[in-house]
Amino acid sequence: MAKSNKKTNEIYLDYAASVLPNPSSIHSSGLKAKNKLEKARRVVASILGARPPEIIFTSGATESNNLAIQGVVYAAIEQDFLPHIITTNIEHPSVLETFKLLEKRKLAQVSIVPVEGSGIVDPKKIKKEIKKNTVLVSVMYANNEIGTIQPIKEIAKEIRHYNKENAKPFRVFFHTDAVQAVNYLDLNVERLGVDLLTLSGAKIEGAGRVGVFYKRKIVSLANVFGGGDQEQGLRPGTENLPEIIKFSEALELVQKIKEKETKRLAKLRDYFVYKLSKCLFDIKINGDLQNRLPNNVNVTFPKIPSDLLVVELSAKGIMASSKSACKSGESGGSYVIKAICKKPNGDVGGVRFSLGRDTKKSDIDYTVKSLFGILQKLKKWYD
Amino acid sequence: MAKSNKKTNEIYLDYAASVLPNPSSIHSSGLKAKNKLEKARRVVASILGARPPEIIFTSGATESNNLAIQGVVYAAIEQDFLPHIITTNIEHPSVLETFKLLEKRKLAQVSIVPVEGSGIVDPKKIKKEIKKNTVLVSVMYANNEIGTIQPIKEIAKEIRHYNKENAKPFRVFFHTDAVQAVNYLDLNVERLGVDLLTLSGAKIEGAGRVGVFYKRKIVSLANVFGGGDQEQGLRPGTENLPEIIKFSEALELVQKIKEKETKRLAKLRDYFVYKLSKCLFDIKINGDLQNRLPNNVNVTFPKIPSDLLVVELSAKGIMASSKSACKSGESGGSYVIKAICKKPNGDVGGVRFSLGRDTKKSDIDYTVKSLFGILQKLKKWYD
Repeated sequence: MAKSNKKTNEIYLDYAASVLPNPSSIHSSGLKAKNKLEKARRVVASILGARPPEIIFTSGATESNNLAIQGVVYAAIEQDFLPHIITTNIEHPSVLETFKLLEKRKLAQVSIVPVEGSGIVDPKKIKKEIKKNTVLVSVMYANNEIGTIQPIKEIAKEIRHYNKENAKPFRVFFHTDAVQAVNYLDLNVERLGVDLLTLSGAKIEGAGRVGVFYKRKIVSLANVFGGGDQEQGLRPGTENLPEIIKFSEALELVQKIKEKETKRLAKLRDYFVYKLSKCLFDIKINGDLQNRLPNNVNVTFPKIPSDLLVVELSAKGIMASSKSACKSGESGGSYVIKAICKKPNGDVGGVRFSLGRDTKKSDIDYTVKSLFGILQKLKKWYD
Repeated sequence: MAKSNKKTNEIYLDYAASVLPNPSSIHSSGLKAKNKLEKARRVVASILGARPPEIIFTSGATESNNLAIQGVVYAAIEQDFLPHIITTNIEHPSVLETFKLLEKRKLAQVSIVPVEGSGIVDPKKIKKEIKKNTVLVSVMYANNEIGTIQPIKEIAKEIRHYNKENAKPFRVFFHTDAVQAVNYLDLNVERLGVDLLTLSGAKIEGAGRVGVFYKRKIVSLANVFGGGDQEQGLRPGTENLPEIIKFSEALELVQKIKEKETKRLAKLRDYFVYKLSKCLFDIKINGDLQNRLPNNVNVTFPKIPSDLLVVELSAKGIMASSKSACKSGESGGSYVIKAICKKPNGDVGGVRFSLGRDTKKSDIDYTVKSLFGILQKLKKWYD
């Protein structure tokens, strides 16, 4: 990888900054990199209906979620008061564990609102939890395990009403983890009414490992990492430019195919559910069937542990998941499935099938057929 | 990018986890990814003389430094005492600003030891600062601006002595930011005597944007981010597997060429310094000339602002740096140059030339010649 560009006679003597040109450098290679970075930022901002300075690039969704939550909390602490923050009981671990961490370290008071049996939270229940020292509500756009879509606009409305009715020195800000929504749902922050929003490249085809963090201008946020002044000091460290460019291009493509792909996958998902229910009548589909991502099917097979099913499916060449991969090392069943089950399901959890751009009808047929065979085999032992 | 592998009839229904196979998934694609991740971890561990579970992959050096410092501080806070931490005044911003952040938030007491005029810290001065509640000393291996190499082994010895002489419920741990040392210096953590060490892919040819964080088994560290249980919960979020593999391969290559490349660059650096001193007799080379990275030349040109020189050099196709790119937006001169200057140099700072694998003698000749021309032109205005 030659740095000295022979065509232009360029001599690179900035290896200590970075072996690749660095957007923070003031020489011409640095400026070229900076221009590419700002172009990617404009593309992402325009898709979210935001202004470019409101877009911060991070290393991924876990970091974006932590920056949103910890950043608002630290801003309050720096103003010498103990903040209160609200979330739901089926958030991704990068939200839920961050809430618990801040509570354990006595840096925040925490309210965790349980979702309904449908896997959807009641906006009124969120509003009821808002207190004088509440600074943040964080509710995911769509759930990573069961695919249920939360009423983000309605929650935003409740928070807006609260902010109007209550004159406080600070507002309650609203954050949504939109990681699972990115391919299928509206991402416009004005229409959604959110102040902070998280995206991840890991869920977009070809987007690279990079996170995005939208921060409305009015939100006062303290930095979590100490370091340089990249990304307004909120995400110090040299920007991952090649991945950021890939991300902005992939996100642009998603917008173009979103409508068609959402329709295609919803049809495929409904076909999958129909076939499953027809062949295997004692299964349970987890989570609301209407307000649901078009690519998610989550099924509980009574008595049979979901981990075992995933391994059996894998032996047939089918890659599914037994719970959020982010917590797959965790013992016991999924906390999301537990949250929506009225009676304990014996920790068997749920198997998540999440569809994507390459998924075809024949894949679904093969999966249902394979599942049928696996269940026939396993039932002998579990019945 | 087709996920369904037609050759093996594989059907990928785990898009919600990640569009690429995820090391945390229990299906066979996930296990394959996990194996690759653990292989990369073994390679890095072996180069550092560490055990694989002591290696944690992060998004970069800023994150690694923050995890080391904040992680040790939070572990103390969770045991209900206010920790004291020590560093020097020429650390990278990701260390120095993190110290200041923790002090501002009243989460730690902080001592910042000034380096000598040579740009090297006196180990005795570090030891003198150690107090009853000291939990961490963080001293960089080699400075990013002036290339001076710190006496890491001697500092480690002082800390070891203190730990032996003083029976405390906890030890003082020693962290080094080895980012600039990676291509040229010994990285063996046993020989160095460090408990925590930071590396970055950004400074290694072909290594990708990934950080490494070595944590000796005995160090009790709290997590900074809440999230999943990847990287022992210390770095939650899906691992950046493609970049991690690139990093381990690039680090292996560095070991093979290290000795030869160090000799080659030291010779080139000394030639550069000789030519500069011969042609431009009123310059000052910043930082110790013996204990110095083989690829670093940092020069102050009296009266002429370094930023201006960098821009003029860039116009001649030479990419240099006026200070750490990580703080290039900062107003005023470099805090590193200021720290080693007895008399103020009028904020002109220093120009850093950092050499690398592609740097040749002819590049140095062209740079010196260009500098001479630029200075002739600028002197008319500045004299």
